[in-house]
Amino acid sequence: MWRFAGVDVATARARIEAALEIGITLFDTADIYGIDGPGFGSAEELFGEVLAEAPGLGKQMVIATKGGIVPGVPYDSSAAYLESALDASLRRMKLDHVDLWQVHRPDILTHPEDLAKTLARMVESGKVRAVGVSNFTAGQVAALQTHLPFPLASVQPEFSPWHSAPVWDGVLDQAQALGASVLAWSTLGGGRISLPGPVTALIEHKAQETGVAKAAAAYAWVLAHPARPIPIVGSQQPERIREAADAFKVEWTRAEWYEVLQASTGERLP
Amino acid sequence: MWRFAGVDVATARARIEAALEIGITLFDTADIYGIDGPGFGSAEELFGEVLAEAPGLGKQMVIATKGGIVPGVPYDSSAAYLESALDASLRRMKLDHVDLWQVHRPDILTHPEDLAKTLARMVESGKVRAVGVSNFTAGQVAALQTHLPFPLASVQPEFSPWHSAPVWDGVLDQAQALGASVLAWSTLGGGRISLPGPVTALIEHKAQETGVAKAAAAYAWVLAHPARPIPIVGSQQPERIREAADAFKVEWTRAEWYEVLQASTGERLP
Amino acid sequence: MWRFAGVDVATARARIEAALEIGITLFDTADIYGIDGPGFGSAEELFGEVLAEAPGLGKQMVIATKGGIVPGVPYDSSAAYLESALDASLRRMKLDHVDLWQVHRPDILTHPEDLAKTLARMVESGKVRAVGVSNFTAGQVAALQTHLPFPLASVQPEFSPWHSAPVWDGVLDQAQALGASVLAWSTLGGGRISLPGPVTALIEHKAQETGVAKAAAAYAWVLAHPARPIPIVGSQQPERIREAADAFKVEWTRAEWYEVLQASTGERLP
Repeated sequence: MWRFAGVDVATARARIEAALEIGITLFDTADIYGIDGPGFGSAEELFGEVLAEAPGLGKQMVIATKGGIVPGVPYDSSAAYLESALDASLRRMKLDHVDLWQVHRPDILTHPEDLAKTLARMVESGKVRAVGVSNFTAGQVAALQTHLPFPLASVQPEFSPWHSAPVWDGVLDQAQALGASVLAWSTLGGGRISLPGPVTALIEHKAQETGVAKAAAAYAWVLAHPARPIPIVGSQQPERIREAADAFKVEWTRAEWYEVLQASTGERLP
Repeated sequence: MWRFAGVDVATARARIEAALEIGITLFDTADIYGIDGPGFGSAEELFGEVLAEAPGLGKQMVIATKGGIVPGVPYDSSAAYLESALDASLRRMKLDHVDLWQVHRPDILTHPEDLAKTLARMVESGKVRAVGVSNFTAGQVAALQTHLPFPLASVQPEFSPWHSAPVWDGVLDQAQALGASVLAWSTLGGGRISLPGPVTALIEHKAQETGVAKAAAAYAWVLAHPARPIPIVGSQQPERIREAADAFKVEWTRAEWYEVLQASTGERLP
Repeated sequence: MWRFAGVDVATARARIEAALEIGITLFDTADIYGIDGPGFGSAEELFGEVLAEAPGLGKQMVIATKGGIVPGVPYDSSAAYLESALDASLRRMKLDHVDLWQVHRPDILTHPEDLAKTLARMVESGKVRAVGVSNFTAGQVAALQTHLPFPLASVQPEFSPWHSAPVWDGVLDQAQALGASVLAWSTLGGGRISLPGPVTALIEHKAQETGVAKAAAAYAWVLAHPARPIPIVGSQQPERIREAADAFKVEWTRAEWYEVLQASTGERLP
């Protein structure tokens, strides 16, 4: 769960508790979240305040964050920057380590060998249990993995019924080859779930049939992919977060799943 | 050879004998062939009847078939489905094994590791001598090969003078890296050989010059690729099948071959 | 440096000396250079005459050439052709070996395993210190590397502020994975540096700010990529060649570098 921003600690805590209640255990944030509100780092700070107020919550969580986006640059994966970014994230979250730390966007200006060294040092330092990447192409992942002394733990593509690109561009094939976990962002299509269209119609139909919210049907579609992508629930409303649990009530048949995939690309499979 | 459908055993046998006569030894069918006629499985059934009638023929053949397309789904590569599909194919063909069994289309919903296990079991069971895939992208082949305990025997892209995509999308590069055999389907461009156009004009010119049928010139063009793609002869008319043998009379010079390739893409090479 | 053509030995020598003066040590030519002027092989011949006249120059150089383009074919990487092409290049340049020999363009009709054998023999023969490729896709490089008994020394994509394709198509990712050197051709955008446009405007601005020629700012942009591409200076005018040295005076900030990259694709990075 992510994008805590512009709210007080009590509200943020209610959201986190709603998520934990329904069995969400992976919490993904980023140093950049909150940039459009209180500012860079504000989501992590709020998260840290909730954890400080209720230390028991942290024990139930797998905590993930990201760094490497620098507003106006826009990316920096140099060792010096990423190390300071990680330290700043930990400070804001009042943690001595995170379970997963991810490079938020590929920095074209950092050699994958240098990035691999930085990530390996993060793990060695104990500040990070595992490292992953977000929005990397298959070629960028391959170059990084070549130089990394351990398997990359995760990738994080945009993936949803409205955006099936990672099915076709090799990212999910590669994750399944490497055994990397997949976190899927923008699983409700960046709001397209609220707009009419062929994909939304199929999601809506499935949701009605199963008696769940549209979002739950969309999450279930993502979860049905064999790479077992973990859909990132972006909503900030506790009732919406609770709806996500219904994803496990939805069973997409193969034919239905493929109908959505085909609606997503606009092309029939042969 | 393929797509026996809507004919009697004698006709089918005449076709098979015509193919064997000219030195065709690899016979490729699929459980789905015949779906537009007598139905799913009918091509394999007919093939099985010919083999039963003339057991000597089978001994001269390398027999290949495919499974994994389920009308209306459209794909299923789950272990349960593929194993039952293979058994059904063998039953229809009255065989205890096939030389090559291919996944007809990539099933996005099956993890490549699971598919690899299914294929490995097929080989272990003795029902299949070797396994291959059809219409897989390079990324899908790479993911499957990672998990497969032996080299993939074959890939089967669409490849013809009218459709040179596998030259550019990495599929033929990868086959040459892996040492996989290449079977080429729709080698007459799915009928485009009968339509006027820049590619057809070059094929026609070469055919006239060499005194062969257009189809033979097209097959020869496919055979000239260094991955040594085996052109699948789709015709059902014995005289057309016999024409295929003339492919070996045609020698494309480099310059001529590249002219066709450039006509195929519509772009001049630099 | 390259494309000596249509000039006398004294002029060519002045150019080479201008390049050496500013610290350029890698000289890249090709058997085809000069084809639009005095003819195939003429650039290498002229180069050979300069080396014969001033043998001391050769000792200061890393000499690279290329073969495999045959006008009207257009490519041939068969063993017989490439071996004769290399011998002809050495004869024209009056050398017993070159430091780097490159396949100029991928020949679709040569199996990567055969090409690998040819390249390995070139190195074994002592006629070539190292081998590389030019204009190969990532898939073509991967297939070749699979069969090559040593790491490919270099790749040579078109890469410039006006043409950033290798950032996105996997070629630079792969070079960084393999540790291959990168030579960048057409680093001034094939003349686009003289045409107005968003990329040129940014290059111009940086050049003015730093007090260098536009070309130097463009070379510096290429050099800033972590694959450390070596920009090939194509100019034939000694004063322009000398300007190239100013590339080392230019420091692109990350933000500025990314501005150019985004102007190059016309799309903002998220």
